[in-house]
Amino acid sequence: MQRLEQQLLFVAEAGLLKGVDRQTMLTRPVRRENSAEHSWHLAVMALVLGDYAPPGTDLSRVTAMVVVHDLVEVDAGDLFVYASAEDQARQEAAERAAADRIFGLLPPDQAASARELWDEFEERRTPEARFARALDRLQPMLANIQADGGTWREHGITADQVLAKVALIEEGSPELGRYARDLIERAVRDGILRAPALD
Amino acid sequence: MQRLEQQLLFVAEAGLLKGVDRQTMLTRPVRRENSAEHSWHLAVMALVLGDYAPPGTDLSRVTAMVVVHDLVEVDAGDLFVYASAEDQARQEAAERAAADRIFGLLPPDQAASARELWDEFEERRTPEARFARALDRLQPMLANIQADGGTWREHGITADQVLAKVALIEEGSPELGRYARDLIERAVRDGILRAPALD
Repeated sequence: MQRLEQQLLFVAEAGLLKGVDRQTMLTRPVRRENSAEHSWHLAVMALVLGDYAPPGTDLSRVTAMVVVHDLVEVDAGDLFVYASAEDQARQEAAERAAADRIFGLLPPDQAASARELWDEFEERRTPEARFARALDRLQPMLANIQADGGTWREHGITADQVLAKVALIEEGSPELGRYARDLIERAVRDGILRAPALD
Repeated sequence: MQRLEQQLLFVAEAGLLKGVDRQTMLTRPVRRENSAEHSWHLAVMALVLGDYAPPGTDLSRVTAMVVVHDLVEVDAGDLFVYASAEDQARQEAAERAAADRIFGLLPPDQAASARELWDEFEERRTPEARFARALDRLQPMLANIQADGGTWREHGITADQVLAKVALIEEGSPELGRYARDLIERAVRDGILRAPALD
């Protein structure tokens, strides 16, 4: 039973992700989203939006990737996507340490394959990872639209900052990238996202 | 773009599952779990506990199934697993109506395949569905152990009532069923679950 005990210890530890809040605002109910909910929502997107992944993309690997991609936040917490480069470098180091600890709870063979899945997501070298990252970037944008500006409004984010993030969506899925670009234009027209400041 | 608009409408609707609370108590933070978190946790379990599915089980189908299995609760809400047979019959009817509406938001081909996945889970006729159901039953038991009795204690549930639910776990995975049986015995010994009343 030792293998199963190790696996269930990991499952219990993973459950702590329900307590890690993200910046993203939900509207029903009005509160911040947590990383477990975010991860599940990406899995729904992976199931539904597979049409827009490059042909040959292994969608079940994408799903597995989005399910585990934020587990490191049990230790490292969530960092706002518009944080400074310095904060992002600190976060990356914390996430690597977290990956060592958390995936290390699993039996060695599974620890290695889960870690591989997480590294793949981080490194964006496969179509699966790039598509998973595209979903990860698109989901908060959709939430901001629904929340009438959400974190864009809260932090005074401008359209050029959001557009800089669209590159990652385009890399994973040209069609979803185009959709995101349209979305941002519409958000500016609708007054829920600020146009770039004129210098 | 109409197909993508339909798909994203479904994704947004799915997001409402973050507002559907279950009975299950979380410990960190102390609050009820919602159905989105529960569904994600089952996806983690499907990834990690595949060893205990019958040989040949398609685990990516199990994952897809657990991701969508509770979407009907956006309309129908969650019903406690120990509810009366009458309440359960009413719930089943409400869930079928919800499945018609919610999966119907998708483009027709996807609506059909998502509905098939949900029906399969409900009908428990495939190894994939039986394994997914086993995980769905095991997860709240693990949460109750972690919460020092949790909903068992809250509702005065006795070990015989919990054991009656173990049959579904055994059907999907004899090994996980055996583990659940041991868990219940230990919970009674530890005084966090009541032994059956003596008549």
